[in-house]
Amino acid sequence: MESIPESHRELLAGPYFAALTTIAPDGIPENTIVWCSLEGDTILINTTDDRRKYKNIKENPNVAVLVLDPEDGYNWIDVRGRVEKITGDPDFANIDRHTKIYTGKDSFYGDIMPAEAAGTHKRVVLHIKPERVVVSP
Amino acid sequence: MESIPESHRELLAGPYFAALTTIAPDGIPENTIVWCSLEGDTILINTTDDRRKYKNIKENPNVAVLVLDPEDGYNWIDVRGRVEKITGDPDFANIDRHTKIYTGKDSFYGDIMPAEAAGTHKRVVLHIKPERVVVSP
Repeated sequence: MESIPESHRELLAGPYFAALTTIAPDGIPENTIVWCSLEGDTILINTTDDRRKYKNIKENPNVAVLVLDPEDGYNWIDVRGRVEKITGDPDFANIDRHTKIYTGKDSFYGDIMPAEAAGTHKRVVLHIKPERVVVSP
Repeated sequence: MESIPESHRELLAGPYFAALTTIAPDGIPENTIVWCSLEGDTILINTTDDRRKYKNIKENPNVAVLVLDPEDGYNWIDVRGRVEKITGDPDFANIDRHTKIYTGKDSFYGDIMPAEAAGTHKRVVLHIKPERVVVSP
């Protein structure tokens, strides 16, 4: 496992948009835009169990997380690794923490998403361990 | 093969930075920042034959190309597909066209890169055909 360089930790700690790369069952990679945060050298991404990216990861845990500095396209970090663990988020502690970082609001269900949406899927937290890290020169 | 929607063609025609996703031999995806342009529904990316992304593609042609609007993180396109063809760029016509789009300058070797660099590697053009296209809602 590799560590995240100090110089680029800020890009992964939010509130920058990140691209999460997963691999579809037919072997073609795909990117979606997500929120993320850092816990030590682990990247945390919150999603739901009805999403394509979640299904891809259940089949193939290999992923990448890319963040480009929106102010400077030549400043970026790409973390290549694996989803090492998937945990639940039954009390929405993680999605609410991400909501605070990205929007300043206190709660995702209620402030951002209709509360009834919380009943239609299960929130999960992806824990991504870096295998290789590449940053802009 | 899928086509690129009119609404998002502009993001792929340059001068926006694109993330090219390739898959390393160990199966982990990786992203690098590149210039790109569109020819019909084919995405063109110029690289060199000594780069890691080129080696990845020779082993595994499955790729994705993501562009985020730097002014609006909620506006993006992700093209998932395959490198269908790799052609040479012996007279630098393609890299010079990309240089014009992205920098306004006329020539890559000379204006951007030392001319002697042209002797150390071979320029190649990746022709990427969309298999699936996803755009921001």
